[in-house]
Order: sequence, then structure tokens, then C-alpha cells
Amino acid sequence: MKRILILALSLLIAQIAPAQQALSFRAPVVSPEINADHTVTFRYRNPKAVSVKISGDFLPDRTVADMVEGKDGVWTYTTEPLEGELYLYNFIVDGERRNDPSNMYMNRDIATWTSFFTMSTKQGDKGWYYETHDVPHGTLSKVWYRSNTLGADRRLTVYTPAGYEKGKDKYPVLYLLHGSGGDEDAWADLGRTVQILDNLIAEGKAKPMIVVMPNGVYYNNAAPGYAVNMFQPTMRNSRSDSTVEIEQSFPDIISFIESTYRVAKGPKNRAIAGLSMGGRQSCSVSRSHPGTFGYIGMFSGVVLAETPEAEAALARQMAPKVAPSLYWIGVGSADGVKVNSLKLKEYCEKKGYPVEYYESDGGHIWRNWRVYLTIFAQKIFK
Amino acid sequence: MKRILILALSLLIAQIAPAQQALSFRAPVVSPEINADHTVTFRYRNPKAVSVKISGDFLPDRTVADMVEGKDGVWTYTTEPLEGELYLYNFIVDGERRNDPSNMYMNRDIATWTSFFTMSTKQGDKGWYYETHDVPHGTLSKVWYRSNTLGADRRLTVYTPAGYEKGKDKYPVLYLLHGSGGDEDAWADLGRTVQILDNLIAEGKAKPMIVVMPNGVYYNNAAPGYAVNMFQPTMRNSRSDSTVEIEQSFPDIISFIESTYRVAKGPKNRAIAGLSMGGRQSCSVSRSHPGTFGYIGMFSGVVLAETPEAEAALARQMAPKVAPSLYWIGVGSADGVKVNSLKLKEYCEKKGYPVEYYESDGGHIWRNWRVYLTIFAQKIFK
Repeated sequence: MKRILILALSLLIAQIAPAQQALSFRAPVVSPEINADHTVTFRYRNPKAVSVKISGDFLPDRTVADMVEGKDGVWTYTTEPLEGELYLYNFIVDGERRNDPSNMYMNRDIATWTSFFTMSTKQGDKGWYYETHDVPHGTLSKVWYRSNTLGADRRLTVYTPAGYEKGKDKYPVLYLLHGSGGDEDAWADLGRTVQILDNLIAEGKAKPMIVVMPNGVYYNNAAPGYAVNMFQPTMRNSRSDSTVEIEQSFPDIISFIESTYRVAKGPKNRAIAGLSMGGRQSCSVSRSHPGTFGYIGMFSGVVLAETPEAEAALARQMAPKVAPSLYWIGVGSADGVKVNSLKLKEYCEKKGYPVEYYESDGGHIWRNWRVYLTIFAQKIFK
Repeated sequence: MKRILILALSLLIAQIAPAQQALSFRAPVVSPEINADHTVTFRYRNPKAVSVKISGDFLPDRTVADMVEGKDGVWTYTTEPLEGELYLYNFIVDGERRNDPSNMYMNRDIATWTSFFTMSTKQGDKGWYYETHDVPHGTLSKVWYRSNTLGADRRLTVYTPAGYEKGKDKYPVLYLLHGSGGDEDAWADLGRTVQILDNLIAEGKAKPMIVVMPNGVYYNNAAPGYAVNMFQPTMRNSRSDSTVEIEQSFPDIISFIESTYRVAKGPKNRAIAGLSMGGRQSCSVSRSHPGTFGYIGMFSGVVLAETPEAEAALARQMAPKVAPSLYWIGVGSADGVKVNSLKLKEYCEKKGYPVEYYESDGGHIWRNWRVYLTIFAQKIFK
């Protein structure tokens, strides 16, 4: 048996030329390694490198730390004890950024892949919600719908909660929008929507719900690899704000969802939230379709305007014409777009709308948006 | 507007520390670039590198080619004119393998990420089937089912053809199995199942069908990132052959699918196929559930046995007890496991089963398995 197994593996190795890494006969380097004391050790083998540093969002103030070369040319770095979280990092090898070749976990933000890992120190900490646990799991689907408004078939991501397939219940729907340069994959991949919802629902902390994650860039039909060309997504273009087009075409999405899935209707069963450009869209869509959404979330919402006065006017325009059950605003204390959140909060308060304002540390980053989703999902449809 | 846009981008750049690549201010390097004459140019900027090579499956005999350094430290390589195909490649920088940092398209095979691109030279060439075109698109879902046999909730991938959601038709089902070390993501990602089926169905060359891609490794419930820990998949373990367990638990999958989706039943509406270990499983499952599958595909099927005699006996055991409508065997001429395919073909011929044998160039590689799927999908349910 062993002989044939070795033969078969040898054949495979000879034939899978570009996939050498997984089958390398060098002793494997384990990286990252989460230690019992919640420190994390990173390892990178490169005997020829002169300088290896690590950049990661677990480092204080996001500085860069030196890795130390040991025997065998393996460079290492061990963190302080860390909290449960999804962490991003990369190595800097003689000045060149590269991902950890020993860690196959990477996620893509716009056009950039970054190594990541999740860890939790106890059930219910932040990182715990981002991990898969032995709880009932929902389904994640990539679905195409027709937008007659935009004259195109477009792709969106749908999360249906555990039990959807076999049950008869109708579910409320959260429409969840990504930021500029993102696509319909962003919330599921970077946002850990599936894990967060599975875990919150299993704990009874969120109502079972459908989450719809459309592509919010009107001129892209689908994420890279599922669009008709192999485009490189970018934020560097003048068409990055799809707010008007998404606002006008949003009824196409709602009517597709409500005619395709077992959906509870009416504003008490519809929520909309988004991050950055998607935050602006969630405000704009809810305002231009008054009474459609009972729950509105703006996560680090970006408003682009030429003057402070125009910016303030835009922020007011984003406010709903009909009072929602909840207007939830989340933003990082270091986020440059915080002023928009504060203005919107002020405006909602003046109108007497139920508004909650949540300020977290840090800036315009996914780490915050995962937290906002975790909180917002517990507050809606109740 | 421009002022605020620059401000907003600056804020984002300052805050998205690990995602520097996409937002770098260096002039972007375009790589790969598919030229009008079907040659492809690769570019890689690294002024400090002493030697940069490219390894790719478009090179003759899969050798490695030197890249040439130009101004600005950008290394380039241009291929001969290429046929339509999905190509894999990586750079070798001073002896270290790395992916193309300018190309965000990567796919994962077991634990290895590799840069790729697709190209087609005309409608209907091989590469054309692997690309997304403006045709009706099916849905791709990641679904969990209960396997009572294995005592676990397990994840599988389901492709439902365009029109499934709104229609009432019942569809035949192809069960499609991955190889050792793979998972339920492999066929959709590396195998381009969605694109192949969308395109074949749109052309009328394949019947609209459901494709079910289970996780065929019995001790893994789900692909990396959706299992309960962050495991690194590997072929290097003694439990890599899950044939017996998958054979025994397969009725759990069929009964889940047939009770959850609008499925046409009976052997004329069930096909099973798989690659490598999955080829062995497709044979084994169809044999131990006689009369269940009308169409059986073995793609580069691997049979592990200690002696040539035992190997031959195993190959015979894989043959069905009940004649299927079609036994389709595909294998590469340079594949070390070709002997099993030939023996199985011989056995089927002796029994008088309808058998087709297809031999392609090359070895035990995804490039072949995509071709086999493209052919097999056109032959079933007709």
C-alpha cells in the first residue's frame, strides 16, 4: 500500500508543476501558530532574505515589527497575547510585500489579497462570532437577477438561515451593501456574514433572517471571475459612486427577492444597511423609497460633496422621509467620515426618529464593519 | 468634488494598512496582458531581484523561462501565441516561488494558491467555456446537509441551472466528486463548473441539470474557512482515501438532494462522476448502489492496491453490477494511473456495457478534468 501511495504521490508531484508548494519536501513551516497563552507566532523561511518584517493589524498603532532569523533561515515573530478577532497581516521581505506562504487563508479586499487568521479566547468574544461552530448552518447562494432599470442581469449573494430549505416560515430580509470597489462577495468573505448570522441565530440573539448582498457598483454585473471579463477591481476611477443608479434600480432587487424566496413583507420585515459607499446607498435608497425599510443602518457612511454646506445638505437628504423603527449609525472614532455620521444622528434626533449611535475605535476598516453587523443584526426585526 | 474624493481616498489609504497594494501610488504594472495576437505578456516589478523566472503550464514541457529586466526594474516575459484555455503560472524570484502581485486572479488547489488567467480565441474554444458570457446564469449554493451515516452536518455545493428559481421543471442531477485533499469548493473554483454548465446549456449542448459537488473527504465537514477549525488541507496523510465512507454515506446526499430540490428521479436522471480519488468514488458508489446511476464518469480515476493483481481486481470491483446507459472514462496519456482506466474499459467491453474511452494529452491535472466535464456533461441525460 505504502509503495503505491508513494508512487501515486510522485506522479502527482511530477504533474502538478505550478502547485509545488503544497507538495514540497522541505519540512513544513507552521504559520501562524496560535499559542495556548493567546500569543501568535509567525514563521517564514527565506535564508536569502536580508530583512523580513511583519505588518499586521494586531500590532500597536499598526506599525511594522522586525522578524528574527533563526536556524534554517526561518524568520519568526511572536505577538503579545491577543483578543479574539479576525486579524490581517503580511510580510515585508527586503522591502517587498508578500503574503505568508505557509498560510493558505487569504481574503481579497478590492484587488488585494491579504493573509488572515481568526482566533477566539472564549465563546462569545468577537473572534468567536467570525468562526464556524457546530451550530445549524444557513445556505449561501450566488444568484442572478434581472434589473430592467439597469438593463442587465446582475449577481447577488443570498444567505438563507438554517432550516429555510425544509421549512415553511417566511423570513424578514436584511439588504446589506458593500463599499466602493467591492462586490457581492465582500460581505460574505471579508464580512463573515455567514458565520456571524449562523452564530447569532443559534444563540437566539438574532431573528432568523435572509441577508441579501447585492453588487452595489452599477457598471459591474458581478464580482471578478463571474463578470464577462477578467477585470481588476479598483477604487481609482470617477465612477466609484453608484448611489443614484443603485437607488433607482433597488426595486428590481426587492421584487426579485420577494418573488423568489419565502419572504415576510412590509417595513417591519425589511432592513437595509451598508458600509462606506454602501452606507450612503442604504441612506439614499431608504429615503427615496419611503416606508419600505423599517430598519436602516449606516456603517461608516461616506458622503462626498464639494463644500461643508453641501455635505451637510447631503447628509440631511439621506435621512428618511418616514420614521423608521430604528436608524442605527456606526462609525470609528478615527474615521475621516465621522462628521457625516454625527450630522445624520443630530438630524434624526431633531426629527424624533429612534436613532442609535455607536462609536468604536479605529477607522474605515472591515474590523469595524464586522462589529457593526454583529450589533445591528441583533437589533432588527424585534 | 475632486478635493473631497482625494481626501476620502487619503483617509482610506491611511487606514487600510495591510491593503497597501491596491492603493499603491507606484504606476501600476499590468500583468498578465493578453495581446491581440494571442501572445501573453507578464510583468513583475522588482528592481532588487537578481533572477526572475516564470513557471507556467503554457510553456513547452512545463519548463521554466527567464524573465528579462527592463527599465524601472520591471521584468517581462511574452509567450508564443496561445490557445484558449485557463492557464496557471507563478514567478520564481531569486529561487522563491511567488504569485503575480499584479494579478488578483488566483485559485486554490488543496493548500496552494496559484495565479491564473483565462483566454479564448473564438467562441466555442476550450477557454471560451471557462469564461462568463452574457448567457442565462445558474445559481451556485453552499448548502449543509445531515449525514446520519457519518454522524455529522456536512457542506456541499449545488449548481441549479438558469430558470430553476422561477420554474416548475424537475431536473436530472450530476453528482460530481473532487480528488484527494480537495473539498466541495474545488469543482466550482478550479473546475469552472458554473461557467461550463451555463455555456453548454445556453448553447443547447447540455441538458439543464443540477450539479451536486459534495465534500468527499469523510473526516472534513467543509472546506477551509467553513470547517470548525482553520485546517490546512493536505494530501500527506494516511486517511486520504475516503472511498468506503463516502460509498456508505452517499444515500444521505441523494436523499437530501431529492427531498430539497425539484429533482427528476431514477437512473436515467442520475449521473455520477469524479476525478482521481473522486473517480474511484464514482465507480465505487455506483457499484455499491446498483441501478442508482444511469451515467458514470471516471476522470483519471486512482486505484490504490499493493500488487498489480490486486489492482486489477479492484478495477473490476469498481465496475457496475447493472449496466449503465453510459460508462465514460477519461484519462491523460501521460497519467500514471492510466492503467486503471484501460482495465476498466476492457472489463466494461467484455460485459457489453456502453463504454466510451477518451484519452487526452498530459497527466493528472485540472486542465484535463475541465475538458472531461465539458465532454461528459454533453453526453448525459439524453
